Amino acid sequence: MKQTPKNIAIVGSGLVGSLLAIYLRKYGHTVTVFDRRPDIRTIVFSGRSINLAMSNRGWKALSEIGIEDEIKKIAIPLDKRAMHVVGKPMYFQKYGKEGEAIWSISRGVLNRRMIDLAEESGVTFKFEEKVWDVDLPEAKLYTGETEKGEWQEYKFDLIFGCDGAFSRVRHKMQRRSRFDYSQDFIDVGYKELTIPANADGTHKLDAHSFHIWPRGKYMFIAMPNLDGSFTCTLFMPFEGEVSFDSLKTKEEAKNFFETNFPSVNHEIEDLTTDFFKNPTSAMVTMKCYPWTYWDKVALVGDSAHAVVPFYGQGMNAGFEDIYALNGIIEKYGDDWEAIFQAYQKERKPNADAIAELSYRNFIEMSSKTADPRFLLQKKIEKRFAEKHPEKWVPLYSRVTFSDRPYAEALAIGDEQEKIMEHIMGLPDIEEKWDSAEVESKILGML
Amino acid sequence: MKQTPKNIAIVGSGLVGSLLAIYLRKYGHTVTVFDRRPDIRTIVFSGRSINLAMSNRGWKALSEIGIEDEIKKIAIPLDKRAMHVVGKPMYFQKYGKEGEAIWSISRGVLNRRMIDLAEESGVTFKFEEKVWDVDLPEAKLYTGETEKGEWQEYKFDLIFGCDGAFSRVRHKMQRRSRFDYSQDFIDVGYKELTIPANADGTHKLDAHSFHIWPRGKYMFIAMPNLDGSFTCTLFMPFEGEVSFDSLKTKEEAKNFFETNFPSVNHEIEDLTTDFFKNPTSAMVTMKCYPWTYWDKVALVGDSAHAVVPFYGQGMNAGFEDIYALNGIIEKYGDDWEAIFQAYQKERKPNADAIAELSYRNFIEMSSKTADPRFLLQKKIEKRFAEKHPEKWVPLYSRVTFSDRPYAEALAIGDEQEKIMEHIMGLPDIEEKWDSAEVESKILGML
Repeated sequence: MKQTPKNIAIVGSGLVGSLLAIYLRKYGHTVTVFDRRPDIRTIVFSGRSINLAMSNRGWKALSEIGIEDEIKKIAIPLDKRAMHVVGKPMYFQKYGKEGEAIWSISRGVLNRRMIDLAEESGVTFKFEEKVWDVDLPEAKLYTGETEKGEWQEYKFDLIFGCDGAFSRVRHKMQRRSRFDYSQDFIDVGYKELTIPANADGTHKLDAHSFHIWPRGKYMFIAMPNLDGSFTCTLFMPFEGEVSFDSLKTKEEAKNFFETNFPSVNHEIEDLTTDFFKNPTSAMVTMKCYPWTYWDKVALVGDSAHAVVPFYGQGMNAGFEDIYALNGIIEKYGDDWEAIFQAYQKERKPNADAIAELSYRNFIEMSSKTADPRFLLQKKIEKRFAEKHPEKWVPLYSRVTFSDRPYAEALAIGDEQEKIMEHIMGLPDIEEKWDSAEVESKILGML
Repeated sequence: MKQTPKNIAIVGSGLVGSLLAIYLRKYGHTVTVFDRRPDIRTIVFSGRSINLAMSNRGWKALSEIGIEDEIKKIAIPLDKRAMHVVGKPMYFQKYGKEGEAIWSISRGVLNRRMIDLAEESGVTFKFEEKVWDVDLPEAKLYTGETEKGEWQEYKFDLIFGCDGAFSRVRHKMQRRSRFDYSQDFIDVGYKELTIPANADGTHKLDAHSFHIWPRGKYMFIAMPNLDGSFTCTLFMPFEGEVSFDSLKTKEEAKNFFETNFPSVNHEIEDLTTDFFKNPTSAMVTMKCYPWTYWDKVALVGDSAHAVVPFYGQGMNAGFEDIYALNGIIEKYGDDWEAIFQAYQKERKPNADAIAELSYRNFIEMSSKTADPRFLLQKKIEKRFAEKHPEKWVPLYSRVTFSDRPYAEALAIGDEQEKIMEHIMGLPDIEEKWDSAEVESKILGML
């Protein structure tokens, strides 16, 4: 359906803000993006970023406006996990079927490219312009140097809040009555670390793998960059026996890496330097509702639904918001109230589902990966899925390599879990896990 | 333990703020209470209040500082519910054992009295002084006419946020990392209505009863005031078939009262007038953590844990916070960091428990009161409790007529519920509910 051109503001020039800007330009809208930070193209990165894992939902949203190929140039496909488990040689776990991969991208590199593309499509960016207040019914933004200082007023037809988990736009909505909101932090923090490239620019570890050093309560991961380096993330409790709190000196940190991550022994100096240079960041699940205000304001991406990063779906979920919103815009034309209503109704259950799935993955990684019964269950599921790929799509694949709703993936995952609970309750399952009996039991329960 | 006198600010002159002020004066602290609203003693009430039901926990906190008798003068004991059920004559339900009662108090009347008592004890009140910002580590308050205008700075040793469910102090804490927070609104709103006294000043309904007209999705209640009037509350969905939204004209409202609440037929004119004069208010469950910041700032009452009003425990829980805090102060003396840590650790599980109990009561009232199996279960519990009062204290009594922790009441209530689920699953329970078999089954499971 045709759209009457509107004057639209987007708050936040991150990945979701810049992609939404490109989508809205397609319809001929005037789009201005505000960001309180400087232009990311002009500064060094923050040292608090986890590399992104673009998967199907993200690519689909990029493909729809023809920039998939452009972005693939700055991404590296990872078709497997490289597991660095204590007491075992490193081994690989394929992610999915042949050709299925997640793609490692540096957040900074991607964000720069997206802003370039948005500017090329005619979007105006106003960097270092801080939004302090939003008049929701009037769709007005107020910006200025300081909260207490002089403000400039801007009037728009529509405002999109793409300003992340600590959204100023949502913050304004939150002060209204009947706005549901929650923020839940986990006790684990993370820190960005780097493994630099070899002198010849090649990668020090396999470049097409997502490297994981699972250690129960803490975990180290590494994802490749185009320049031969790896962006690594150390996840660890803030407080407690093994924690960010407990590593106070360079010696302690060195000792920690040497003892626990022997396969990155050569990088100890770099890792230790990063450890004290980079900040420790917190992780939060944020939920809210409604996401929209009349036909004036809507939240998209993390501002509406921030998740912990353990499913690698945060950005993908935000991009899928935009893809879904676009489909609804095409259906409803100029009726922005109907567009916003349909958008939040369609997306909210899916946002809740990916929040739940992401949190469960955190729990699974921190408390179950060492449990032999849990590992046996995963082995049975894997065997069955290989034999009956049409009957048992693993939850990870439903989330990562499909574009079916997250809520559906969660629901089917729960059904599969029920079946597996029953299977794990069978006597002597440790012995007969690979038997025809177990296989036919599962088939019978599907 | 002795305390070194401190300069303390309390934000909020409501019930919790003024009671806490009286407690702190006892130790010789200098106490200043800020409130953005005018002195409640100088204005007419808001028309959005539900009468309070003071029960054991509240009285205990008042008794500790010797003002219980003073407050009892403005309260009316209610020893029973008066049930106005469709198709039945009105009947009574005793609350507890002989002498057990909840006490009806008008919020406004109580608040005025509490402020008087606080002033008498040497507390300074600063009304119509709006707190806009709080410097948590420095314990500074910033007040002023408007958020953007000139501010005055105050420096204190300690600040207590007693500023209710939409607390400004908590709001400042919420913007920090690792602060858990949630606000969940229910779809039901409420409206204050009044049944005036008879011409001779007597009550139009029994004065020592909590009057309830349960209607499933909506409900009408009435609580007596000293002047012969009743403060009534209509709870009803905001939207839907029978809802605040659906009653748009005076005729519709009149018709609604006439049809559904025939026993208040004489008051129709007053109720209808109030219906359009008074605002419709929302109800929220609010949880957060931590409640304190270093040894500088602490939240007490609704600012830390707002609950829906269906257990009548909101004020009681806030007063119990103060009672508990006082006990901890006596133990730790001048170590305010230890005091605040112990306070939040002791109170948080209890606040979560009363939030859960209050929400369950809402669900119970709106969806279960018409279910014959639910009513049968309640009948069996009641019969058993009467026979074995030492073995089965009903959950309502544990919450209302005891000072054992809310968390304990919830846990024991859940155990009782499990037993009753089993009992309700017995074949032919409808016939044999009053049998020796059922009684001995329950005894066996306790």
